[in-house]
Amino acid sequence: MGENALAWEPAYARRAARMSGSEIRELLKLLDQPDIISFAGGIPDPALFPRAEAGNAYQTIMADPVRANGALQYSTSEGYLPLRQWISAFMTRMGATCDPDNIVITSGSQQALDFLARLLLSPGDTALVDWPTYLGALQAFNAYEPRYDRIEFGKTNRTPESYAEAAAEATEGGRVKFAYVVPDFANPTGRTLSEAERLSLLDLAGELDIPVIEDGAYAALRYDGTPVPPVIALDAARTGHVDGARTIYCGTFSKTLTPGLRVGWICAARPIVKRLVLIKQASDLNSPLLNQVVMHQLAESVFDRQVAASITCYRERRDRMRAALQRHMPEGVTWTNPEGGIFLWLTLPGSCDGAALLKAAIAKERIAFVPGRAFFADGTGANTIRLSFSLASPEKIDTGMARLAELIRNYS
Amino acid sequence: MGENALAWEPAYARRAARMSGSEIRELLKLLDQPDIISFAGGIPDPALFPRAEAGNAYQTIMADPVRANGALQYSTSEGYLPLRQWISAFMTRMGATCDPDNIVITSGSQQALDFLARLLLSPGDTALVDWPTYLGALQAFNAYEPRYDRIEFGKTNRTPESYAEAAAEATEGGRVKFAYVVPDFANPTGRTLSEAERLSLLDLAGELDIPVIEDGAYAALRYDGTPVPPVIALDAARTGHVDGARTIYCGTFSKTLTPGLRVGWICAARPIVKRLVLIKQASDLNSPLLNQVVMHQLAESVFDRQVAASITCYRERRDRMRAALQRHMPEGVTWTNPEGGIFLWLTLPGSCDGAALLKAAIAKERIAFVPGRAFFADGTGANTIRLSFSLASPEKIDTGMARLAELIRNYS
Repeated sequence: MGENALAWEPAYARRAARMSGSEIRELLKLLDQPDIISFAGGIPDPALFPRAEAGNAYQTIMADPVRANGALQYSTSEGYLPLRQWISAFMTRMGATCDPDNIVITSGSQQALDFLARLLLSPGDTALVDWPTYLGALQAFNAYEPRYDRIEFGKTNRTPESYAEAAAEATEGGRVKFAYVVPDFANPTGRTLSEAERLSLLDLAGELDIPVIEDGAYAALRYDGTPVPPVIALDAARTGHVDGARTIYCGTFSKTLTPGLRVGWICAARPIVKRLVLIKQASDLNSPLLNQVVMHQLAESVFDRQVAASITCYRERRDRMRAALQRHMPEGVTWTNPEGGIFLWLTLPGSCDGAALLKAAIAKERIAFVPGRAFFADGTGANTIRLSFSLASPEKIDTGMARLAELIRNYS
Repeated sequence: MGENALAWEPAYARRAARMSGSEIRELLKLLDQPDIISFAGGIPDPALFPRAEAGNAYQTIMADPVRANGALQYSTSEGYLPLRQWISAFMTRMGATCDPDNIVITSGSQQALDFLARLLLSPGDTALVDWPTYLGALQAFNAYEPRYDRIEFGKTNRTPESYAEAAAEATEGGRVKFAYVVPDFANPTGRTLSEAERLSLLDLAGELDIPVIEDGAYAALRYDGTPVPPVIALDAARTGHVDGARTIYCGTFSKTLTPGLRVGWICAARPIVKRLVLIKQASDLNSPLLNQVVMHQLAESVFDRQVAASITCYRERRDRMRAALQRHMPEGVTWTNPEGGIFLWLTLPGSCDGAALLKAAIAKERIAFVPGRAFFADGTGANTIRLSFSLASPEKIDTGMARLAELIRNYS
């Protein structure tokens, strides 16, 4: 013991070497500086939150002694039944026919990703992900020490066997254990997988006999184009029910109602859900029941209205950002054209480093965004950045894109 | 794919083999049957919840647009600063001098146990625990595939080296990584470690150079006897600050204010807290801010009053249970004599199986409790049961103990 600080490093598990901070989360702190125009955090505009309705819901429940005492007590790990009923009806409407027993409530879909990695990954096993993919998914998965391989969509020379062989041949190699995708308006690229790409993903998963983890965080926020059925719907259609599907769907109310109550869900075949309920029990016993009851009331009363308002708001901002990029960006900069969600993805000239650009952006232009490299499991993508258009007003989007273009001109 | 259910088992990680359900959680469902007198769940009496104050706190926050929108948004992974300030002052008052940077907010102390196991345990590493110990801790730790060894308190022939050697020699062996204790009114035994036992635990941990995880879930609920300083206070006293302590303290408001909001904390040296914040970020981003703000208001306004009311209520029930056991129990049954907390631990005649007794208890006598075996990492303890005295009224405690004694007489 003694006077000196303890040497903690040797105490840690091996997996701790793969736990690192998120540039996104660090950047959230910048939001407190009012002169920064932030395109960094992938967070909804709080002006859209159903504040009055949430306040009324809390008041109604807390004014009823029986309901209040129930809501303040421990509750079941699988989650509040009426909320699971609402979600199973919602999933069924999206084409993924299921029952409340196919749903487990999680603390946002981030917890869903943690639980699924815990259930599926032994150290050295392979997770198939996109290059780039959601940074928070990589952070959640990393704790379980996977190897990553890149899912190739569309025309590819890779056979299913090539994934399995690469997984087995890797140092400390294991098996391919799942494919993870954000098929609609992906974080970070805004890209949407076509129905053909989804079906070929299911074929690949079938050949490898692995589950598909579908992250539907942004699926409700489509601004134009033709909706594509969720992967889990295409999958469940083959047998008529989610119980026959290999797809595991992660949903959340964070982008449609409010992220603050931390309510998400997993929809999957019953055997998987039973396992996940055990994981929930061992992890944090249950999500706060009061928040689930309030979320159920909000889902019942204002879900469609909130989604419509979000679409109107974010569509305008996306259009404004696209127009501003078109107007201001120098040659050599390209960007994606998302049909929904809250992200645009910029590829800068090869010599331009997104992380260096961010430092200059904050210091000189008082704008923020997320450098793209952290979204790549292989550490490439230095010349990419992610822009979120959900939080800044249209006017600030104009100003911000002009400043960003000026920066890129100077740094590339 | 096809019509048949998928074979999910081969998809799971190796750790899934060690994930099992909790008899306690299953039994929580029995609480819905009004004619069952339950001594099973280790849950507080909802009649004690500060319902009106919680309702007012929600209303005040939600009525203020700025606070409400903040509370409904994503927030920082380490937790709400005013709450961390309150907790660090609380820990300092208990003798564990610390700062808000020594605190990370978790979803109850169950999540704290999950995070600490994730940070510290590689597969095959050894966790030192008591025999029996908190079942939920074993469930949390099991996901990280440890080996268990038994901490021996008081007179023992075991040397520190004997723990280290056994850890290294085990199949897939690793190192001893931590010692986990519930030093005050332990779940499940109700037992409290003396100051001498705590100091010798710290000596053992020093010799093995491992952290001590102190689970303080029940520490505030002392009914008589002399308070013993928390292990972390004894530890921090050596250097004057938690930053110099090897003890990691897990606290919770679940047994003092309300478990429903799922607010707990870890108090530890800063390097550990920084790591835990990364784990929180990867696990569920943050605990609901609204719940943290409400919990802070409750802690500021009614903590002492709530603790006093809980002590008055539970002391009477403990006394009533002790008296009823004394009155009714046949020879050969022994029980612990807790100075606080919510549990009494019964040792039955060797031939009497707690699990079989429970089945008969529910079917014939309409009472419930928890068979003791699940609390033993080595699967012994079949002739033990845990009784909680927190939920049943004094009258029901009398009735219940009479029925339990009758059962034991018939089954032993």
